[in-house]
Amino acid sequence: MEQAQYEKGIRQFAQMVGQENIEALRQQFAALSSDFERYVMGFVGGEIWSRPNLDLKTRSLCSIAILAALGRTNALELNVKMALNNGATKMEIIEVFFQVAIYAGFAAAWDGLTKADTVFREMQIK
Amino acid sequence: MEQAQYEKGIRQFAQMVGQENIEALRQQFAALSSDFERYVMGFVGGEIWSRPNLDLKTRSLCSIAILAALGRTNALELNVKMALNNGATKMEIIEVFFQVAIYAGFAAAWDGLTKADTVFREMQIK
Amino acid sequence: MEQAQYEKGIRQFAQMVGQENIEALRQQFAALSSDFERYVMGFVGGEIWSRPNLDLKTRSLCSIAILAALGRTNALELNVKMALNNGATKMEIIEVFFQVAIYAGFAAAWDGLTKADTVFREMQIK
Amino acid sequence: MEQAQYEKGIRQFAQMVGQENIEALRQQFAALSSDFERYVMGFVGGEIWSRPNLDLKTRSLCSIAILAALGRTNALELNVKMALNNGATKMEIIEVFFQVAIYAGFAAAWDGLTKADTVFREMQIK
Amino acid sequence: MEQAQYEKGIRQFAQMVGQENIEALRQQFAALSSDFERYVMGFVGGEIWSRPNLDLKTRSLCSIAILAALGRTNALELNVKMALNNGATKMEIIEVFFQVAIYAGFAAAWDGLTKADTVFREMQIK
Amino acid sequence: MEQAQYEKGIRQFAQMVGQENIEALRQQFAALSSDFERYVMGFVGGEIWSRPNLDLKTRSLCSIAILAALGRTNALELNVKMALNNGATKMEIIEVFFQVAIYAGFAAAWDGLTKADTVFREMQIK
Repeated sequence: MEQAQYEKGIRQFAQMVGQENIEALRQQFAALSSDFERYVMGFVGGEIWSRPNLDLKTRSLCSIAILAALGRTNALELNVKMALNNGATKMEIIEVFFQVAIYAGFAAAWDGLTKADTVFREMQIK
Repeated sequence: MEQAQYEKGIRQFAQMVGQENIEALRQQFAALSSDFERYVMGFVGGEIWSRPNLDLKTRSLCSIAILAALGRTNALELNVKMALNNGATKMEIIEVFFQVAIYAGFAAAWDGLTKADTVFREMQIK
Repeated sequence: MEQAQYEKGIRQFAQMVGQENIEALRQQFAALSSDFERYVMGFVGGEIWSRPNLDLKTRSLCSIAILAALGRTNALELNVKMALNNGATKMEIIEVFFQVAIYAGFAAAWDGLTKADTVFREMQIK
Repeated sequence: MEQAQYEKGIRQFAQMVGQENIEALRQQFAALSSDFERYVMGFVGGEIWSRPNLDLKTRSLCSIAILAALGRTNALELNVKMALNNGATKMEIIEVFFQVAIYAGFAAAWDGLTKADTVFREMQIK
Repeated sequence: MEQAQYEKGIRQFAQMVGQENIEALRQQFAALSSDFERYVMGFVGGEIWSRPNLDLKTRSLCSIAILAALGRTNALELNVKMALNNGATKMEIIEVFFQVAIYAGFAAAWDGLTKADTVFREMQIK
Repeated sequence: MEQAQYEKGIRQFAQMVGQENIEALRQQFAALSSDFERYVMGFVGGEIWSRPNLDLKTRSLCSIAILAALGRTNALELNVKMALNNGATKMEIIEVFFQVAIYAGFAAAWDGLTKADTVFREMQIK
């Protein structure tokens, strides 16, 4: 992972999680594996999330849809937070779970909405 | 499934697959089970796809994301077609598969892009 | 979601979770999204669970099988409880996990049995 | 895999696929791997399918539910055939896919019903 | 499940989890279902894990890959522990999650690495 | 995706699919999306597959395990071919599917073995 790419990704994630949270997020990844942190920042953030053609809000909603369908816990929580920073409202995020309900089942929507709800409460989103 | 709801769903799907294709689609479902056709039209179409809060294009892109993540063949093909009718460009649809690549893996993105590509060719989308 | 359908679903779920638990269940769903609660009651309960052709016990066992295979937490817990109310014995519920073991893997069966066991203990089922 | 167990499983599967089809099924597995054939017959058939506590029809319906939820092609086809031999009607098998629709999504139900429909046509089940 | 096969499996698992932990593991399974414990020991351990053709370390790494891809919690934790006993280093186990990241997505890798990390800390693996 | 990284990935994949097949593989990806081809080569090949800590054969076997568990068609076929080039024998590849059988289910193993078998036949591996 090239350094310029890595730094681009850190700036991308900082924009999406808030400048005040980026260090904690990086440390959370780095505590698991320093290379994992570099790939998440440099590739996930610096290559994919920073691409053109689709705005950040739409990327966020699609990501929430994928993660709820697959039942991925950590990334779903992070992506609900990032979606709010990327301009999605609570109402729009909840709306995604109705698409999840029809195409991945009500059970996936229920688990995902429960996780999203904890984020809304934690961030005091009404 | 109430009749008014069912007919609302048929109109919703007719808008998304094209008036000239709705009968064939309904017959495809009804050949499997007439009740299945009624639920797909009345609930999936008449309740969920016709909801406010999120535009049809965004719903389409989220649906493609879910279906590619889960590897659902028939519904992915239909949803790529509907996404084009709902105003998404080929470029935007392809972009969704990059979010699929990072959150559901490159293998899911590859299978999904392959299916989407057959739709683009069939519909002569450049 | 039509009102009559919605109320039919509430009655259906009340039968399956016990009249004394239906309000808490509805509030759990409504706290996530009031529309989600309406769809779960009206469509999942009022349309599908209230269908003929398959008895409630068999529907419950099939649902447990699906939810264990997909690793859906909230709905698996609820469906184990409903299965007991729908006439399935602890022995029959456990038996489903052997089908899960061969067709979805021992790992899915283990996670599912662990969740089911917490329900059996909570409900003091021997 | 002990010989007695293996032979017990062959008899179990012969009952479920029909005596006239058991050799072809065994050869299909053995062409992939002779040990795979022994485990499928001896463990899947001889240990699990031959267990008490749940009748063969209910086991079949639960298995179809799992396989449709996970999108497993070969085993879903085989299990629809075995379900018919185990006493399930076409109507009951289709009914399982409505539980799949609510808990694993309409997309899984659609793919599964499509596969089941090819079996019904092949076996001329009305 | 034949007695000799069952005992062979217990010895196999005892080797992989440590002689001092085998009773607790068996009791954990048996508390869910005594037959489940017999199948896990006798078939998973006595038939599959004790096969030739692939060393235990490679089997462990493949198993971790599968379990992380599917998000199976209990079995992933156990298999990380067994991998260490089967000769895999922490570095090699972490490396598997990079293959998970590309083929099952970064979200599956994140959830899996988080679970693996709790095992490394519990076992004081640096 | 930086040019040096991209070229490193092409060399990595060329080693694994054979120099005579690399252009066809790249064109297969590029026909879907030129950026997808760049990420597969540059990140999947140039970053992950070219990492140290785990030999190519073990990476291949873990990848086959993941892809069979998730039912990913295109990538499973490619990875069986690459596994053979990375030094795995047909016997070792088949062995992975026994781990798939216990942890992801016999149905996933059956679908995966069927796909692997077509590769073995195509490449005339006895």
